[in-house]
Amino acid sequence: MVQKNKSAEKLREMGEKVVREISKNKNPNIIIPIRALSNVIFNERTRTLELGDKTSSRYFFNVAHAKKFLQTIEIASILKRELIDTRKHEHLRGVFYIAKRTVPGTNINIVDDQTESDKIIEDLEVITGLSREELHVSANKMGSLVGAITMIDSGDTIDCSKLGRGGYSIPSITDELEFKKVNAKYVLYMEKAAIFERLNEDKFWQKNNCILVTSQGQTTRGIRRLLQRLSEEEKLPIYVLCDGDIYGAYIYSVVKYGSIALAHASERLTIPNCKYIGVTMDDVINYDLKKQIIKLDEKDMSRIKQVSQYDWFKDNKNWQRQFKLMKELKGKVEIQSLATRGISFISEVYLPEKIKNKEFLD
Amino acid sequence: MVQKNKSAEKLREMGEKVVREISKNKNPNIIIPIRALSNVIFNERTRTLELGDKTSSRYFFNVAHAKKFLQTIEIASILKRELIDTRKHEHLRGVFYIAKRTVPGTNINIVDDQTESDKIIEDLEVITGLSREELHVSANKMGSLVGAITMIDSGDTIDCSKLGRGGYSIPSITDELEFKKVNAKYVLYMEKAAIFERLNEDKFWQKNNCILVTSQGQTTRGIRRLLQRLSEEEKLPIYVLCDGDIYGAYIYSVVKYGSIALAHASERLTIPNCKYIGVTMDDVINYDLKKQIIKLDEKDMSRIKQVSQYDWFKDNKNWQRQFKLMKELKGKVEIQSLATRGISFISEVYLPEKIKNKEFLD
Repeated sequence: MVQKNKSAEKLREMGEKVVREISKNKNPNIIIPIRALSNVIFNERTRTLELGDKTSSRYFFNVAHAKKFLQTIEIASILKRELIDTRKHEHLRGVFYIAKRTVPGTNINIVDDQTESDKIIEDLEVITGLSREELHVSANKMGSLVGAITMIDSGDTIDCSKLGRGGYSIPSITDELEFKKVNAKYVLYMEKAAIFERLNEDKFWQKNNCILVTSQGQTTRGIRRLLQRLSEEEKLPIYVLCDGDIYGAYIYSVVKYGSIALAHASERLTIPNCKYIGVTMDDVINYDLKKQIIKLDEKDMSRIKQVSQYDWFKDNKNWQRQFKLMKELKGKVEIQSLATRGISFISEVYLPEKIKNKEFLD
Repeated sequence: MVQKNKSAEKLREMGEKVVREISKNKNPNIIIPIRALSNVIFNERTRTLELGDKTSSRYFFNVAHAKKFLQTIEIASILKRELIDTRKHEHLRGVFYIAKRTVPGTNINIVDDQTESDKIIEDLEVITGLSREELHVSANKMGSLVGAITMIDSGDTIDCSKLGRGGYSIPSITDELEFKKVNAKYVLYMEKAAIFERLNEDKFWQKNNCILVTSQGQTTRGIRRLLQRLSEEEKLPIYVLCDGDIYGAYIYSVVKYGSIALAHASERLTIPNCKYIGVTMDDVINYDLKKQIIKLDEKDMSRIKQVSQYDWFKDNKNWQRQFKLMKELKGKVEIQSLATRGISFISEVYLPEKIKNKEFLD
């Protein structure tokens, strides 16, 4: 309730400022923090990617700005009137369709393409300081959760330790979930749903008193926010389990430090103290996975070079060692390859050993 | 329990036949129904794609067969020993890694690539008459479910009407789910998770007494099997909601009639009496969506030509009319475009009207 009023209030303020300027015969304008590489900084103190303080202005009476000005006002109005005031949520694509109509008396569409409305929604995030979730706009739903946690979701109390093989299907917006009872000692987040099913079938979360989260691929904003809330509100350690390759390292990098595209949302999404549990290049030796190595191609090799030079990796000895080993081996090793050691080797040996010995990459 | 014994029994029979042949100094062989277009037929009576009765033999003492013979025996043994006997399930990729080892005393890998083990698993399905699920092999987990149904999953009783915005995350194997209590009148399956979230937020399933299922993209085997079981065991009508384009028609086609690649599994996957609820080309006129049409490209146009000539579509007047309209309009219309008529238009007007008037494509 409080949150919804805050969102409506911020959008109202923005509109009222424009109305005031019009009634004073001024050229109405909107001030927007710049969301470009030139204004993205790595904050050494908080250890996350953030927006700097550069701003630009969008004027109504300016041929280059007029259309975007109109789009900004129109979409702000849709978000307030159709979503926040009615307590509904809509996906990016739906907002595009609601906004896609002609300017009255003309043939000109307010938006022609979803990329336009998506950008305006990102603008509105930085203009108002509200997250997209607080503006009631969602993106694709993805991922599952099981484990020692009870949550309240839209009035339903959900005991995630009693959801069988399937688990709880994570909604696209996780800000409104309420953590009712948490018995877990940590959260294990993995990119692969196949591993989630393996660990869930082995009752790993029960035996090790934890929560399992998977995304099946890229970590959505909803999952990042959920993990961050579990870290901050419940003080749970977050361990990240990915393939032993540069794409795994990148997934970890985004979860921990943020991404350039979403630098303005870092505060609500990054988890500076999460840890990488595996798969590492050292596992190849330690767990006898040499025969399971898959060769890298040139694209992979150049991606290693790129990621290894990120601000937060370049002075990190442990990660530099990993990147060096990747290049020397010219190979990657998948989480599933642990199955060569036995189908439940991952849940009975690999993960418990790593966690017991605190063998993490930071 | 019974099912698990049946699977183990079938694999044991297969092994024992080989052992008998060896002890009689015969050349051991395995008989395999052919899984190729030449042996796929459209059964007019059951209205599904099926395998014909052509078979081939795989001999051990045959240079062209020896490696595949070995792979077949080795993977059959892995499935029985590591999975079925231990009651565990493994993903296709995991089975590949378990099988990936050298033939003792040589440098030759039993399998070099996952495509090899995947093919052998499909062979084992047709050899034994067991489904991949009965062989305890899974593929990617995908999709969510909410609504008026209570299921038992691995001993947990899950009331799917109390899972908030998220819902139940559908496991990759749905054969073992038990339907405990079903109050729903029908199942609405949609390709898009965004629409699932819209309908769930609007409590559509509560107001209309139904079950909502989404896949987010292609319908996985687990979801097809789940829908089929809800159709056959619970006698629920299944309505399919897709984008109004040829890819939507194809999704419906696979759910209803099956696919060439999985013709051998049709019996367990197809739903001959499911119905297509939308979006149709007629909706463009009936619901004033003309401005929301997206232009088709040449690839889309040739796909229309292809799909419209499928056995089960070519004499179907209603579908031929759809394909004709697609070609005339040279356009497609997405489910989300209904949002231009109002954010909850889909749940308050479009779907209830269609269902009340039985306005389906069959």
